[in-house]
Amino acid sequence: MSAAIEGGATAPLLLRADDSGGVTVLTLNRPAARNSLSLQMLETLENALAAIGEDASVRCVVLAANGPAFCAGHDLREITAHRADTDGGRGFFDRTMQACARVMQAIVGLPQPVIAAVQGVATAAGCQLVATCDLAVAAEGARFCTPGVDIGLFCSTPAVALARAVPRKSAMEMLLLGDMIEAQDAFRIGLVNRVVPADRVMETALALAGRVAARSALTVRMGKKGFYEQVDLPLQEAYARAACVMTENLMARDAAEGIGAFLEKRRPVWEDR
Amino acid sequence: MSAAIEGGATAPLLLRADDSGGVTVLTLNRPAARNSLSLQMLETLENALAAIGEDASVRCVVLAANGPAFCAGHDLREITAHRADTDGGRGFFDRTMQACARVMQAIVGLPQPVIAAVQGVATAAGCQLVATCDLAVAAEGARFCTPGVDIGLFCSTPAVALARAVPRKSAMEMLLLGDMIEAQDAFRIGLVNRVVPADRVMETALALAGRVAARSALTVRMGKKGFYEQVDLPLQEAYARAACVMTENLMARDAAEGIGAFLEKRRPVWEDR
Amino acid sequence: MSAAIEGGATAPLLLRADDSGGVTVLTLNRPAARNSLSLQMLETLENALAAIGEDASVRCVVLAANGPAFCAGHDLREITAHRADTDGGRGFFDRTMQACARVMQAIVGLPQPVIAAVQGVATAAGCQLVATCDLAVAAEGARFCTPGVDIGLFCSTPAVALARAVPRKSAMEMLLLGDMIEAQDAFRIGLVNRVVPADRVMETALALAGRVAARSALTVRMGKKGFYEQVDLPLQEAYARAACVMTENLMARDAAEGIGAFLEKRRPVWEDR
Repeated sequence: MSAAIEGGATAPLLLRADDSGGVTVLTLNRPAARNSLSLQMLETLENALAAIGEDASVRCVVLAANGPAFCAGHDLREITAHRADTDGGRGFFDRTMQACARVMQAIVGLPQPVIAAVQGVATAAGCQLVATCDLAVAAEGARFCTPGVDIGLFCSTPAVALARAVPRKSAMEMLLLGDMIEAQDAFRIGLVNRVVPADRVMETALALAGRVAARSALTVRMGKKGFYEQVDLPLQEAYARAACVMTENLMARDAAEGIGAFLEKRRPVWEDR
Repeated sequence: MSAAIEGGATAPLLLRADDSGGVTVLTLNRPAARNSLSLQMLETLENALAAIGEDASVRCVVLAANGPAFCAGHDLREITAHRADTDGGRGFFDRTMQACARVMQAIVGLPQPVIAAVQGVATAAGCQLVATCDLAVAAEGARFCTPGVDIGLFCSTPAVALARAVPRKSAMEMLLLGDMIEAQDAFRIGLVNRVVPADRVMETALALAGRVAARSALTVRMGKKGFYEQVDLPLQEAYARAACVMTENLMARDAAEGIGAFLEKRRPVWEDR
Repeated sequence: MSAAIEGGATAPLLLRADDSGGVTVLTLNRPAARNSLSLQMLETLENALAAIGEDASVRCVVLAANGPAFCAGHDLREITAHRADTDGGRGFFDRTMQACARVMQAIVGLPQPVIAAVQGVATAAGCQLVATCDLAVAAEGARFCTPGVDIGLFCSTPAVALARAVPRKSAMEMLLLGDMIEAQDAFRIGLVNRVVPADRVMETALALAGRVAARSALTVRMGKKGFYEQVDLPLQEAYARAACVMTENLMARDAAEGIGAFLEKRRPVWEDR
């Protein structure tokens, strides 16, 4: 994957992609706009994720951001500008919200795990990105909020991801009050997995990603897909589906190799990696 | 809304309603019966909530209680008295349980957020009230339990609210053992949002309510409704619905005003407040 | 129930069952194989649970394990041996996974509560057992992990139980990284209810079980069944069902006795215990 992945040749480099050892780092790169999610940024992210999903050389993704903010959510200037459209902006708003929902679901549906590496603030749809990623590492000074309620636009789509990541009353508190919460509180409620010194966020996220990337890609792919397929199902259906996933996984060469290596106390050699 | 809201002119004042600045404080006022939820209390609550739901001047609700107990759950004396009914009480029990389920769902379905202000003990259906409210503030000495198992009546309806507010094993522990849990443990498991000194419970709840009340009522209403609509849906359906809510919210005047004010660094003036 | 419950007369004693005061302790007893869940062990567990479900003298179950490990998950030697089957093992794998899913659901569906008493490590399907039990007590040195990802076999069925017990990102962290987590972290994320010194695990689990066993069995049975029936339902359906459970529970003799005893400040005498 090339380092520059936007569409337009003259467009600013909205998103950087850096590959190393099976790990792709996607870096939101619109620091002057606090990495806000313009429609172009959302489409760029969507395209990048689609490409990664097809790229067997990518084993894990780190979602990072350039500048003092991780991501400030939607691009309010762009939204406001489109109020001058003949439809009052409705068409643009709808395209933006659909694109945003697709991006979030693309992260969940991506075969490879996605690890957020969060410095600075992650607000509104930026907080949603963190809630949506499979794992998240936060800098000690990172902060999180869903402050749409302050500007007349409730964070209703961020709420989808938030409600699935944290306890219900924690989600409602963030949504109804719009307060910034500190990284340690984000850890306490389950929004992030690790809080580390700011200068170690990327190194920590890359270390976790490297560990995921060293595993059998087939195994990780079956596992992530299986997880999200079962998580919303009633228990009986969840087990019916998961038991099938286990049998298929057991029949795969990498399970035979991995289990064999474990029993023989040697390191496994993955086929699918 | 008048301060006295019961039906009967001679009935004791089961529930007080005090309005100030868009915040209605509903106070359970049956302290001698530990604010237990007699059928009349449930119907009074249901009627009060229905009236609030129609009252555009109310922006947020605080649910409080008078006396040393927040709420002791169902009225066991009333239940026992109805065992003398010709049907052994079944009709009365059924009416009571249906009314209780309607009250709890009325809190969830109320357009305005509801914040519990909990002093003393909240047990059984009283604990359910706390679990059901959107947010909860507890006094340091407040305690919570679902002790039905001790009296042969498992807290099966409180379990509905509890299981949606706290981790599953925490819910099962409360339900199977019936132990009192302290406010700090209630905070740890997500049953309450804040623990404050007893003499600051109401002030804290009112401060949170005041902040909610100062926002665009339309925004809060769309947000709360949207939250509970999506929270039980599979992810794709949840996003489909939430994206529509966002677009509608964006088209509303208060979002234009709020976003505009934010960009212009001025205070928004809400139309719908 | 006899102390030895395996099928074959000459089979090693895979599972011990010890009854006392209405509490049955099921002890995984294959310490040399780290109590791994061979197909025979799963079927033995399934049969034992089925028998317990029919045995009105059993009021609560403690699931314990003999030896330094609680349970190491599936039996990898057995799995590997079956790769020589004519179908490459598929039939055996499928039988094993179906049996495992039935055992886990049998714990959830068992009328009596099941309390895990965990010493040593609980890995993969062993961790799933802990996540599945209604309550869990862990030794201070107990550790938990779902390390299938390390051996090419993602813990997809353990994920079903884990995702319902702990926050989503905690589950994904355990599943994607496969790290051991300490008992205190297991407590923090909700995987276990109590962490106690190693020499007090069984005593603590038995004390909790004894308390459950002293309650009306009918009440506990209606409550546990009602809990799992409602927990995956949308709110309205959950309340409709739970309200019916409450009315039925109220009509039972033990509720009349329990509520009566409470009001009369005497100890209840349960019929169904």
